[in-house]
Amino acid sequence: MARIVMKFGGTSVGNTDRIKNVARRVKAEVDAGNEVAVVVSAMSGTTNQLVTWTNEIARLHDAREYDVVVASGEQVTVGLLALALQDIGVNARSWLGWQIPFRTDGIHGKARIGEIDTTVMRERFAPTGDRGGQVAVVAGFQGIGPDNRITTLGRGGSDTSAVALAAALDADRCDIYTDVDGVYTTDPRITAKARKIDRITYEEMLELASQGAKVLQTRSVAMAMQHGVRVQVLSSFEDKPGTLVVDEGEIVEQQVVTGIAYSPDEAKVTLVGVPDRPGVAGAIFGSLADSAVNVDMIVQNVSQDGKSTDLTFTVGATDLDRAHQVLDGLKGELGFTDIVSDPGVCKISVVGVGMRSQPGVAKTMFQTLAEKGINIQVISTSEIKVSVLISADYTELAVRALHTAYGLDAEGDG
Amino acid sequence: MARIVMKFGGTSVGNTDRIKNVARRVKAEVDAGNEVAVVVSAMSGTTNQLVTWTNEIARLHDAREYDVVVASGEQVTVGLLALALQDIGVNARSWLGWQIPFRTDGIHGKARIGEIDTTVMRERFAPTGDRGGQVAVVAGFQGIGPDNRITTLGRGGSDTSAVALAAALDADRCDIYTDVDGVYTTDPRITAKARKIDRITYEEMLELASQGAKVLQTRSVAMAMQHGVRVQVLSSFEDKPGTLVVDEGEIVEQQVVTGIAYSPDEAKVTLVGVPDRPGVAGAIFGSLADSAVNVDMIVQNVSQDGKSTDLTFTVGATDLDRAHQVLDGLKGELGFTDIVSDPGVCKISVVGVGMRSQPGVAKTMFQTLAEKGINIQVISTSEIKVSVLISADYTELAVRALHTAYGLDAEGDG
Repeated sequence: MARIVMKFGGTSVGNTDRIKNVARRVKAEVDAGNEVAVVVSAMSGTTNQLVTWTNEIARLHDAREYDVVVASGEQVTVGLLALALQDIGVNARSWLGWQIPFRTDGIHGKARIGEIDTTVMRERFAPTGDRGGQVAVVAGFQGIGPDNRITTLGRGGSDTSAVALAAALDADRCDIYTDVDGVYTTDPRITAKARKIDRITYEEMLELASQGAKVLQTRSVAMAMQHGVRVQVLSSFEDKPGTLVVDEGEIVEQQVVTGIAYSPDEAKVTLVGVPDRPGVAGAIFGSLADSAVNVDMIVQNVSQDGKSTDLTFTVGATDLDRAHQVLDGLKGELGFTDIVSDPGVCKISVVGVGMRSQPGVAKTMFQTLAEKGINIQVISTSEIKVSVLISADYTELAVRALHTAYGLDAEGDG
Repeated sequence: MARIVMKFGGTSVGNTDRIKNVARRVKAEVDAGNEVAVVVSAMSGTTNQLVTWTNEIARLHDAREYDVVVASGEQVTVGLLALALQDIGVNARSWLGWQIPFRTDGIHGKARIGEIDTTVMRERFAPTGDRGGQVAVVAGFQGIGPDNRITTLGRGGSDTSAVALAAALDADRCDIYTDVDGVYTTDPRITAKARKIDRITYEEMLELASQGAKVLQTRSVAMAMQHGVRVQVLSSFEDKPGTLVVDEGEIVEQQVVTGIAYSPDEAKVTLVGVPDRPGVAGAIFGSLADSAVNVDMIVQNVSQDGKSTDLTFTVGATDLDRAHQVLDGLKGELGFTDIVSDPGVCKISVVGVGMRSQPGVAKTMFQTLAEKGINIQVISTSEIKVSVLISADYTELAVRALHTAYGLDAEGDG
């Protein structure tokens, strides 16, 4: 017997037939003798519709009222799933954020999770009389703030709800059911040779998630790592094992490189002739941060004349216009000569905890790209990751070549 | 300054433009110096969609989960209306049933209202600092049961929510905004000579509401009468006075007949050769009640041979099949000879508190119908109402003739 949190996203509960399918999945775990809590998102499309309505009403939101509106989507799915479970003989009840209670701070629209009271839920897991234990059907994405009002965790927050609940319940596993069957060595749409990864470490998953592999929300992975929650990513439409996200110690045979991610939504900005004196970089990146422009890779060339240098960095493509506005305002004050930007770039990252102990990973990357005639514009590294910025035109070519170079290609007909 | 509860139904909040229109209506009352609570229904169509989903999931519902699902509709509209009010400079916040709390009993799906705590709402009506008083935007149709779970009041329950809130707040008036501009002397679709009624008593409104004039929910009228809440029915699309539902003492000049209602959804059942002995009627109507078949008009003919009689009554047309099943089961036991039913009937009612002191109202009705050659099948009366059952073919003819006979026709071009 195990205690399991199962989480189903919007496409998995997108209509009543799919909700019935989810109920059968849950029943299988119950029939296997497990204690089960299920976290669900809103039916796919619902949250977008609700957000559209709030935008039609007013451009500037009171985030507390926004939360009231958008949290209704998950309320519908918990009720429907509880009904579907009862209909096939499973003892189940729905739980809304305020009923549990699932406490958060008061930052409406992107609340942080506080304490989750699981006392009653735990009691009900136990069979009573001739009745089997009760399945808790929990609304994802929502909680209750200190002001007794509904809060939401931000888009995709249901993954985080599930992991947080698994931690609070001391669950043996948190199964995230989605429309793909696991985490792949790279995007299968780019190369058919991509392989499903059986086990991956939190750190690697975190790098892959934040580098553009959109299977799991970054925040949920960070939380799983923090609390040691074993997370499994698997398909809600197929009945086969997925990818287990676990602690490094649980992985016996570690690949040097586990996966290759790419992030096409990047733009490169170069400031030409930036005065080479202390405080200039601080002024530039401070102003960008104040305007909520996220800066990722940063490269500063060596000053050639001792007076000025070029500064290159990347921002999210959607932030590029805002970045230009901020930088235009600084140009006179800081005295750089020009702003050159290029939205046609892509960041490619190779990720693997094995590279800590294995030198030469970066070298393989640079050689492979050079052999294909791909110019590297910016390089950035971490302990378990090497990222390069290249022209977006070469994205597929680069990913495929690196996938082969690091021995990740599936064998046989893959 | 007055304290007002405003209620807007599904069509009045059917899309975001209409919600903005509602916000302007509310602002006008606030600008006039009034303290305002607004009760809203779900956007039109939403509740039907939610109910359809619950039916697709399971034929037999856990009413507690059904309530979780359907209460989400009002949650969306309170959030959107609060945003719309804030957007035009009105201080407003949304209140869900569990937040107020709006306490009910535990009969999920058709809960009865208990205590409504209006302490905080009242405090917030008062302006504070340079801020105007706060408008309370309240989700209709929903409450919270003794088990800390969401309850709903049954279809159309938002009218009842509004009246109950008005009573709890000691409001000066409860304005029910709808898609018609008031209560009419009869259905304007049947005769263009129907007139809007300026003032009507609770008792009359109750008879008209339960006799098929679908402007106000019967239950809300009964509650208004019980608590002495002045209710106004008016259009959310036009800016003119509606119909005021008030105590009899507030109506100076009382018509003998105030309005004419018709109810086409009736079916007539006649049991032939029912043994004329005590207990038989009790057995028949007891069994029908046990099967939730509502019986309305009942007529028992005088026994001609001292042994048996015919018993005629009406049931809702949708209950006719069920009534047949029940009666078939009783036939042998009770020994009546035949069951004859006719779904092609209509009940016509003339209503007016003035008929208490004015004889001859029934006579006018019977004469008028006789002159048009309309046969009366069943008659039933109360202190302020005369109802007859006629062939449904003559519905329009009967309503128009009676409307003229009682002097209700509008003058001029009406």
